Amino acid sequence: MTGRFDNFNTNVKYVNKLPDLPLDGLVIYDAKLLRHSDFQKWILKYKHSYKVTAGEKLKDLKNFHEHVQKIYNLTSSQITKNTTIVGVGGGSVGDFTGFLASVLKRGTKLIHIPSTWLAAIDSAHGGKTALNLNEIKNQIGTFYPADHIYIVKDLLFSQPQDQCASALGELLKAALISGGIFWKKLSQEKTLSHQLIWKYLPQAIALKYKIVKRDPFENKGIRYLLNLGHTLGHIIESKHQVAHGIAVGYGIQLSAQISVLEGFMQKKDYQKLISQPAFQLLVPLNSKIKLTEKEILQGLAQDKKSEKKNFVNYVFIQKPGQVFAKSIAINEIQKQYRVVYNGQV
Amino acid sequence: MTGRFDNFNTNVKYVNKLPDLPLDGLVIYDAKLLRHSDFQKWILKYKHSYKVTAGEKLKDLKNFHEHVQKIYNLTSSQITKNTTIVGVGGGSVGDFTGFLASVLKRGTKLIHIPSTWLAAIDSAHGGKTALNLNEIKNQIGTFYPADHIYIVKDLLFSQPQDQCASALGELLKAALISGGIFWKKLSQEKTLSHQLIWKYLPQAIALKYKIVKRDPFENKGIRYLLNLGHTLGHIIESKHQVAHGIAVGYGIQLSAQISVLEGFMQKKDYQKLISQPAFQLLVPLNSKIKLTEKEILQGLAQDKKSEKKNFVNYVFIQKPGQVFAKSIAINEIQKQYRVVYNGQV
Repeated sequence: MTGRFDNFNTNVKYVNKLPDLPLDGLVIYDAKLLRHSDFQKWILKYKHSYKVTAGEKLKDLKNFHEHVQKIYNLTSSQITKNTTIVGVGGGSVGDFTGFLASVLKRGTKLIHIPSTWLAAIDSAHGGKTALNLNEIKNQIGTFYPADHIYIVKDLLFSQPQDQCASALGELLKAALISGGIFWKKLSQEKTLSHQLIWKYLPQAIALKYKIVKRDPFENKGIRYLLNLGHTLGHIIESKHQVAHGIAVGYGIQLSAQISVLEGFMQKKDYQKLISQPAFQLLVPLNSKIKLTEKEILQGLAQDKKSEKKNFVNYVFIQKPGQVFAKSIAINEIQKQYRVVYNGQV
Repeated sequence: MTGRFDNFNTNVKYVNKLPDLPLDGLVIYDAKLLRHSDFQKWILKYKHSYKVTAGEKLKDLKNFHEHVQKIYNLTSSQITKNTTIVGVGGGSVGDFTGFLASVLKRGTKLIHIPSTWLAAIDSAHGGKTALNLNEIKNQIGTFYPADHIYIVKDLLFSQPQDQCASALGELLKAALISGGIFWKKLSQEKTLSHQLIWKYLPQAIALKYKIVKRDPFENKGIRYLLNLGHTLGHIIESKHQVAHGIAVGYGIQLSAQISVLEGFMQKKDYQKLISQPAFQLLVPLNSKIKLTEKEILQGLAQDKKSEKKNFVNYVFIQKPGQVFAKSIAINEIQKQYRVVYNGQV
């Protein structure tokens, strides 16, 4: 085997400024980045650049042919499998760029430069690419790890400050899965800032690679652990317009509560977890959300990870560093959510 | 690494009749196959089947979204990564089905049942999938070896008899690359028939896997050897409406002649090669074709394998079992073709 799934732990680079890349490559970037003068200067250097509007529409399969056609016109059909395609943006730009690079000429070179915390922590790593089929997210995609991922401090620190809370949700997820010193240190943090996220980023990324390397194609159940907090989190995110990482933070809390009800976690361990300073930074943001029975039912029925009918895979918590996935009936989750919401945990 | 590139030599099955497959899979098939009553009976068993018109239009990226949408409607969006997608047809059906299976849910299970000799010998094996961008062939694709490939005698023998000549071109290519007993036996054959192609099919397929396993992603130059006879063959095929394998047969002859002119092959070895009975079955089919300078220039300039400007990779022959790829200037090929055509080899 000589593919890009070998040694894909070594390709993350932490840098202060936007890096110098092959000037004959193709750079696909989020139009919003033109706000930053450094980015403006940087993008001008490249022979071929393609500006996109980030968001789900970019990922619509219906528009894919048109994007490819425009890119062929832009580059005079000169793309080969040795061309470097660079994606600069958040999750949607990365998903689109990754998919494009994975199928153009049966795979070109690929570099990700995530411009959001969520992409830098999570989606830029591990090789998942995705397009949507109309309203159904991520139906089309490939596994295609990037050749390099640049984590650019300047770019990430130029995000709005409110992205830090969302980033913290994903950091807490990684730390809870990881346990040990990562959880111990992060959980004691009391102040949200770009600096806080930057400080723990390498550990969260390392955790992701540790898991993905054991299950690159998501067919052994190991990679599913990364879904901690996401099963209910996704429903909260889509139905209540909550930022992804904040919804994940709430999803983790619910997971811990349901773990108590299912007898996997001791109540005192839950209380300890939830009272940690870093966790408390997120709790107030979620206190007013209530999912309806219907939202839970519909959301879980659509959960792409369910294979057994009326069941979902769900990630439970015993304690930090000890999480596991288990199939559970959807109506059991509904029932336990009701118990949780009525304040009984 | 746990992907489908491991052990992908063991998945070819030679059977007499269409096999029994998972009945809840999705079968994509060439509409032409409904002519055969056995196929009609077979396809009725499957819950989900999707009839396509074979050909380049099927592979047009512009139509891909619509196909996926129809398949989602047909299957009530119930496809998961454990769904088996089966492609029954020739090269275009295999390219389309393979691509679809490789990107749906980031990869489903995949079975190929080639219904043409060319697909059975070549395109069903080795994992290349492809779509076209407008007129430009195979710009979009993936490497996605099938889980199983069924070589079905009944299906293949029901092809028109004239497909055998085209199949012979690809068999001769495989035998020339392979050398040894394969070449010795095949080259002595004097009569075209389905039985002849069937007899040598396993050896041609084994040769393909032997090469592809050493270079699955076509980035080491080894897999390029399979292009023997194809560089000029593709031009003959597209400009003179010659069947693929017959054009490849002529391409092999030209490759041998140019190999003599470039000093790689001895003239007596060329004469011996070309005079073999099996080779002589193809020669009369090509005797009236003349490529123009412009056809060669344009055709080679578009050759997807060229990386150095005004050069192409070209597969030369020393003798059976000894072929090699080398970069050569396009105008050198033009010049040598002129010499060949003027009867000087």
